[in-house]
Amino acid sequence: MLSPLLTDLYQLTMAYGYWKLGLHERDAVFHLIFRKHPFNGNYAVSCGLETISEFLKNWHFSADDIDYLASLTTVNKKHLFTKDFLAYLKKLRFTCDVDAIAEGMIVFPNEPLLRIQGPLIQGQLLESTLLNFLNFQTLIATKSARVHQAAKGDAVIEFGMRRAQGADGALSASRAAYIGGCEATSNVLAGKLFDIPVRGTHAHSWVTAFPDEKSAFSAYANVMPHNCVLLVDTFDTLLGVKHAIEVGKELRAHGGELHGIRLDSGDLAALSIQARLMLDEAGFKNTEIIASNSLDEYRIQQLKNQDAQISVWGVGTHLVTAYDHPALDGVYKLSAIKNAKNEWDYKLKISEDPVKISNPGIHQVRRFFSDENYITDVIYDIPQGITETPEIILMDEQHTQKKLANYDAFVDLLVPVFKKGKYIYPHESIHDIRARAIEQTHQFIKTHGEKTYPVALFKNLYDVKQKLISEVTQANSK
Amino acid sequence: MLSPLLTDLYQLTMAYGYWKLGLHERDAVFHLIFRKHPFNGNYAVSCGLETISEFLKNWHFSADDIDYLASLTTVNKKHLFTKDFLAYLKKLRFTCDVDAIAEGMIVFPNEPLLRIQGPLIQGQLLESTLLNFLNFQTLIATKSARVHQAAKGDAVIEFGMRRAQGADGALSASRAAYIGGCEATSNVLAGKLFDIPVRGTHAHSWVTAFPDEKSAFSAYANVMPHNCVLLVDTFDTLLGVKHAIEVGKELRAHGGELHGIRLDSGDLAALSIQARLMLDEAGFKNTEIIASNSLDEYRIQQLKNQDAQISVWGVGTHLVTAYDHPALDGVYKLSAIKNAKNEWDYKLKISEDPVKISNPGIHQVRRFFSDENYITDVIYDIPQGITETPEIILMDEQHTQKKLANYDAFVDLLVPVFKKGKYIYPHESIHDIRARAIEQTHQFIKTHGEKTYPVALFKNLYDVKQKLISEVTQANSK
Repeated sequence: MLSPLLTDLYQLTMAYGYWKLGLHERDAVFHLIFRKHPFNGNYAVSCGLETISEFLKNWHFSADDIDYLASLTTVNKKHLFTKDFLAYLKKLRFTCDVDAIAEGMIVFPNEPLLRIQGPLIQGQLLESTLLNFLNFQTLIATKSARVHQAAKGDAVIEFGMRRAQGADGALSASRAAYIGGCEATSNVLAGKLFDIPVRGTHAHSWVTAFPDEKSAFSAYANVMPHNCVLLVDTFDTLLGVKHAIEVGKELRAHGGELHGIRLDSGDLAALSIQARLMLDEAGFKNTEIIASNSLDEYRIQQLKNQDAQISVWGVGTHLVTAYDHPALDGVYKLSAIKNAKNEWDYKLKISEDPVKISNPGIHQVRRFFSDENYITDVIYDIPQGITETPEIILMDEQHTQKKLANYDAFVDLLVPVFKKGKYIYPHESIHDIRARAIEQTHQFIKTHGEKTYPVALFKNLYDVKQKLISEVTQANSK
Repeated sequence: MLSPLLTDLYQLTMAYGYWKLGLHERDAVFHLIFRKHPFNGNYAVSCGLETISEFLKNWHFSADDIDYLASLTTVNKKHLFTKDFLAYLKKLRFTCDVDAIAEGMIVFPNEPLLRIQGPLIQGQLLESTLLNFLNFQTLIATKSARVHQAAKGDAVIEFGMRRAQGADGALSASRAAYIGGCEATSNVLAGKLFDIPVRGTHAHSWVTAFPDEKSAFSAYANVMPHNCVLLVDTFDTLLGVKHAIEVGKELRAHGGELHGIRLDSGDLAALSIQARLMLDEAGFKNTEIIASNSLDEYRIQQLKNQDAQISVWGVGTHLVTAYDHPALDGVYKLSAIKNAKNEWDYKLKISEDPVKISNPGIHQVRRFFSDENYITDVIYDIPQGITETPEIILMDEQHTQKKLANYDAFVDLLVPVFKKGKYIYPHESIHDIRARAIEQTHQFIKTHGEKTYPVALFKNLYDVKQKLISEVTQANSK
């Protein structure tokens, strides 16, 4: 289990500060949002909640963690934390409420993916960890959904481990990639840990280990008669296809079948077209053509446009590192805290950039539907509630105001995950999460294409925010 | 400890194939190289060997791993692996020799960072894991070295955890960033695990938790009199500096000191210049100005050019994800295998792209020096040896041939790490590794600037390679 020390030092120094000032047990609310769609896209796929839940279920400081913290000193060699504070930390257990949007849901900028309410010190200590898990897995699930869309129903397999960002950059990427739409991973440990199908072929080293390609293929077919996919580009791709066909015939004579060939270099469009012709002519119409080599959604689209005859796409580095946009910009903001009279004080962070001004309050996100298509997400403040045909203010540059009436259903997206520290979320298999992600992505793209989806504030939350901006600006103007 | 299942499935199916064919115990040699400098640079800093060593020291399949492998099936629902093979895997222990370039050394494309020699099955099973560790950490150590260079002696602190690629994308990035030149990390668990100094300030949430900025600063100074760094941009940066100075004066009156302020938004050049003036005028000449907000080596350079008055650079997302080049292209190639007569057969992988043709043999890298500057790295085949003034062929497009005579010293870079599976590498502290990386980076840049560093093959290795290319092409031409 990961230690709660997987956080930034300033969370611990702030925790210490709150504790010294007696503010640490004040009830506080934080929300986790992202601000901008990755990949210049118009949707994201939420992912990472299960990893967060596992972390929170086991969240406590070990004796070893406490010893380490006791060893830390300030620049002038004084102890950073007092013994009393460390004794407090040692006894600390997770007691917050967490509400979150389920994994595999389509989500948008500025709406909370997760809300945490409980003692200020706990919410603060958890910031960095929750961001790390949700930022990365949401990023990769989104990338995977984009690749899955580009493949238009063909299978996509995630092959990224060797160039992923560390062991967990591989493992949690495999999980998120599966949820986003990949059919399998090559990463065996991810398969074991997360119940993801694993698939693989063989490498060039298999071929080079033998005197020539033909004997390498024969040997492989001999040992893998029911799982035989041959990598044909070690020396010359089309000659490799010829060798694969010869071996495929031998294989059939012994009751096996040539399941597929893999192309890993060269002009994948031209080579796959030629390979398909050769395979079909030789009677291998069901033999799959798998392609790999720096693939991503743009490249797959391009190859599809060139009529490439590829039925399975092996996608690696560009998927697991989100190569063209390798970080989601999630942030985590304090939005309410109980004062000494036990009343909520709403909070926000000001910025010269209006989109960076955070929303005060305790939020829920209501998604409105018309004919089963979702039409608008509205953030509202739970204590203030929301009306039946709400006035809303879109979070666009014009702050467009309108009344939302043309809907026939709605659902509140943030659902309870922890209640006073106890995990109460119903179990969902990763396969169900994946099915939801795929269904929602298809549905969203069918109805919205590349259009920006509207996210709005309910008017009374908008008004509270404007009032608070004035007050805070006033209070901090001297 | 990480399971050996942290590998690609095809390594296991190939392992099974070698085992079935009785080839699995054949002595084989693999090398790990990268092909292209990241970030359009002209050097890289090797990193990740300690992580590899820890993994190899504990490498064995658990009963649980074996059970999982036993559950895997082929597309037509047959068991993927036989019981006999799994019984073999269960008993398998690491028995290879590993030679590698020490961490913190400057390294270049096409030269082996690591050589592994031992039973074919082991070298094959380890490919994906070794690549994952060495690719990512070398990438981040290199990025960190570039940032450290741009900061020209100022401290750089790694703040990247929240947007890193998973838990380990944060932890191993913190390690590599420290080795590359960062002075500290904000990641507390990385501090504990790897003995890296940890540092931090406070977040906007601290300020918003209080009625106004001034009272938030006073409260922080009160609890952190000896470690007080104030984040001044929550509402208005220069007003924040004014508040920090006021609190700094109170702090001095009580025996503390304002250690620093942090700027996190806006025009960092202009704001830092103004803040420096205000601090100096108020008698806070030693108060540090720390900057953060999407920094990297390019931005730091730009800010330096604008005379920004920043003494500490907090670098996050762009460093830990290597944002502009998020993967190193390391590959791992079989280069020699013992035949049935127990003689070495040299091996290579052909490609239409000449730089992708791998080098056959059992390699060492000799680095030649003149006046303590290194001048050329020469890859040679250990069984063939190297002469005193070697004829070399540069690995450039012209295959320039020359005689290397103008040197006064040399060193062989690959040093023993494991001998027959036993770890024999002398312990080095992370601080010593970091000192070497910093010294070597400075030295390299001083002498080579942005020039491409020459990497060459010793002529007899080049000749063997050309001969083998002809033979292999011939053997696979029909």
